[in-house]
Amino acid sequence: MVYDNPREIREHIRRGELFGPTCGLAPGYTQANLVILPKEFAFDFFLFCQRNPKPCPILEVLEPGKYEPVLTAPAADIRVDAPLYRIYEDGELISEERDITGYWCSDMVSFLLGCSFTFETALTRAGISLRHIDEGKNVAMYVTNIQTIPAGMFSGPLVVSMRPIPIEKVVRVVQITSRFPMVHGAPIQIGDPERIGITDLTKPDYGNPVQIKEDEVPIFWACGVTPQVVALRSKPALMITHSPGHMFITDLSDEDLSIL
Amino acid sequence: MVYDNPREIREHIRRGELFGPTCGLAPGYTQANLVILPKEFAFDFFLFCQRNPKPCPILEVLEPGKYEPVLTAPAADIRVDAPLYRIYEDGELISEERDITGYWCSDMVSFLLGCSFTFETALTRAGISLRHIDEGKNVAMYVTNIQTIPAGMFSGPLVVSMRPIPIEKVVRVVQITSRFPMVHGAPIQIGDPERIGITDLTKPDYGNPVQIKEDEVPIFWACGVTPQVVALRSKPALMITHSPGHMFITDLSDEDLSIL
Repeated sequence: MVYDNPREIREHIRRGELFGPTCGLAPGYTQANLVILPKEFAFDFFLFCQRNPKPCPILEVLEPGKYEPVLTAPAADIRVDAPLYRIYEDGELISEERDITGYWCSDMVSFLLGCSFTFETALTRAGISLRHIDEGKNVAMYVTNIQTIPAGMFSGPLVVSMRPIPIEKVVRVVQITSRFPMVHGAPIQIGDPERIGITDLTKPDYGNPVQIKEDEVPIFWACGVTPQVVALRSKPALMITHSPGHMFITDLSDEDLSIL
Repeated sequence: MVYDNPREIREHIRRGELFGPTCGLAPGYTQANLVILPKEFAFDFFLFCQRNPKPCPILEVLEPGKYEPVLTAPAADIRVDAPLYRIYEDGELISEERDITGYWCSDMVSFLLGCSFTFETALTRAGISLRHIDEGKNVAMYVTNIQTIPAGMFSGPLVVSMRPIPIEKVVRVVQITSRFPMVHGAPIQIGDPERIGITDLTKPDYGNPVQIKEDEVPIFWACGVTPQVVALRSKPALMITHSPGHMFITDLSDEDLSIL
């Protein structure tokens, strides 16, 4: 069965009837990374995202205690409408949950951040195939030697994702992804991993390595794992995120996020 | 004497040698609107700006108590480097000052927001003349019937600025200003003031009326006065802004803010 209505999918998720990764669900609708923090950490994290829009593009921030994203997914409940959550205490993963209402309190601030699924859809529609999808893997992610701009208690290195692209399609890939700054946007590096501190492409820090063919160039994008890695370095007393691949599906269409 | 180095100009302003409006100073460098609030109001105001990026495009937000904009104007002091400030208490203007160090305390949060000077420079360079500049007036500004997206304690109507544009240049003007989303970006309305609640173009709510010639279309942009109007409706105990026209000059070049 193919689900193509985001509200319907969220209802199935909420009832526990859908609980796997969200890749491929609701094609054309924007999926979001979730970061939920107590208010005492929220201003600094907001500032971190504002200063680092490429890894941390903000789709919506909710007022303290609010769990309905009225702008991007009205009637949704952020606490039960993602398939799987991770609970971190003092920077340590303590649990994975399908429902976080038990952890909720009135000062929790929820951040919905853009996810690369959106620009991958745009690339696929333009006839550019993505190796990690063809190979059925998670995208390869690497910690770089590029420092994010610190904000309050938050600082740390930029994490990037890598996709091998045929050399004759590099310009087109830059053009297409530049239209989507709300979901990581244009690449941050083309073809020179060592310059950003990546010495071995076969050993990603997260996700899986993929084959790079002879006529292909590795292209690097700022990655939505960055804010999680950075936030956990600061060891907030409590932090809740979606579980990797188990995103929150919004009512925004991917084209709503394009510029020009 | 023409000053073209932003750091030098800020030093003259700091020493009290320059104290007038900043229009025309440091051509090509980005000037900013200032809004400074105690931390208790800062999260909601940050959220308001994030939800309303057309009237409130964020260039930089400083951590509580910080007065050096390290990203946009390193070595500057936000408290003394604008020519004139306005002090509001409980929503009432109580004073204009050239130096706000006396009002400063360790929890003040400073917001630098983009200003239309940047896109006006781009329009002028493209050979499109601006009536209010030709007539030596302030741009005409109007309160509309469009509501901003509320955030916490902040809500209110969108304020727009109007510029008459020759009908054959309307598309070009949309293209040019679309390149600058950090400084209000594309227009919000073309040619139909009544649709956004403006009944008499000769009676702006702020600034001065200008002539609209027969072959010209009034074009409306989201205006940086919006966040001040909205913030003052909420009557924060203390709020400090620049005085109209007396902007804070950053080290950013206008082209740094362009997309594509």
